[in-house]
Amino acid sequence: MIKKIEHIGIAVRNIEQANDLYSNLLGIKPYKSEEVQSEMVLTSFFKTGDSKVELLEGKSPDCAISKFIEKKGEGLHHIAFEVDDIVAEMENLKKLGFTLLSEQPKRGADNKLICFVHPKSANGVLVELCQEIIG
Amino acid sequence: MIKKIEHIGIAVRNIEQANDLYSNLLGIKPYKSEEVQSEMVLTSFFKTGDSKVELLEGKSPDCAISKFIEKKGEGLHHIAFEVDDIVAEMENLKKLGFTLLSEQPKRGADNKLICFVHPKSANGVLVELCQEIIG
Repeated sequence: MIKKIEHIGIAVRNIEQANDLYSNLLGIKPYKSEEVQSEMVLTSFFKTGDSKVELLEGKSPDCAISKFIEKKGEGLHHIAFEVDDIVAEMENLKKLGFTLLSEQPKRGADNKLICFVHPKSANGVLVELCQEIIG
Repeated sequence: MIKKIEHIGIAVRNIEQANDLYSNLLGIKPYKSEEVQSEMVLTSFFKTGDSKVELLEGKSPDCAISKFIEKKGEGLHHIAFEVDDIVAEMENLKKLGFTLLSEQPKRGADNKLICFVHPKSANGVLVELCQEIIG
């Protein structure tokens, strides 16, 4: 079951510039910055209400974020929904006809197991499911 | 002060198809559908956690949603943050160097006063401020 919007991912060219800009916009500083080496991205997170804003800068021209920016420019990249049981939710969505980008959940930023739904399955939206890793 | 993500706006070609798809994805039905004549859009809203997902279909080729889809395809369109005092927040953002798309707040969907920040001011993201209309 989907519980809430966990975060919104925004693709940016320069995360230091974007950290300053979103600190001004949101009136708060990022609570965490993290490099996800498997995805070749730098990330930072801002808490707002019960959700987060995640900024993402690609560290290689070949990574998904750099390719997205090359094709579409900076901007909204994905919406992530929190789930309690990511494996069960992946099964549920597959049965409903959604195409997933991986067969198994992967380890993502901010201590999460994650999986993506193909944008072609969701009106052009890259949807992420994420589950907090406990312990 | 920005309080939370009020909603995420998603531009779609056919809101009936998208209502069905997002009902499957989120496991809930939209709680409201509304036409905003001034913006020439049909909208529907899904509640998820403390935020909402808004679907938007343009009703004219000249409206902002139709132009967005023509240029970029369906997908994530804007992020809306809830504020207590939209006029004060607009003043604050102008002083910080953000470009606003209107001088005054406008009436939006879902009983809100709204204002947009130009995407060029915010790393390609169309940011909406919104304040609930009381009474």
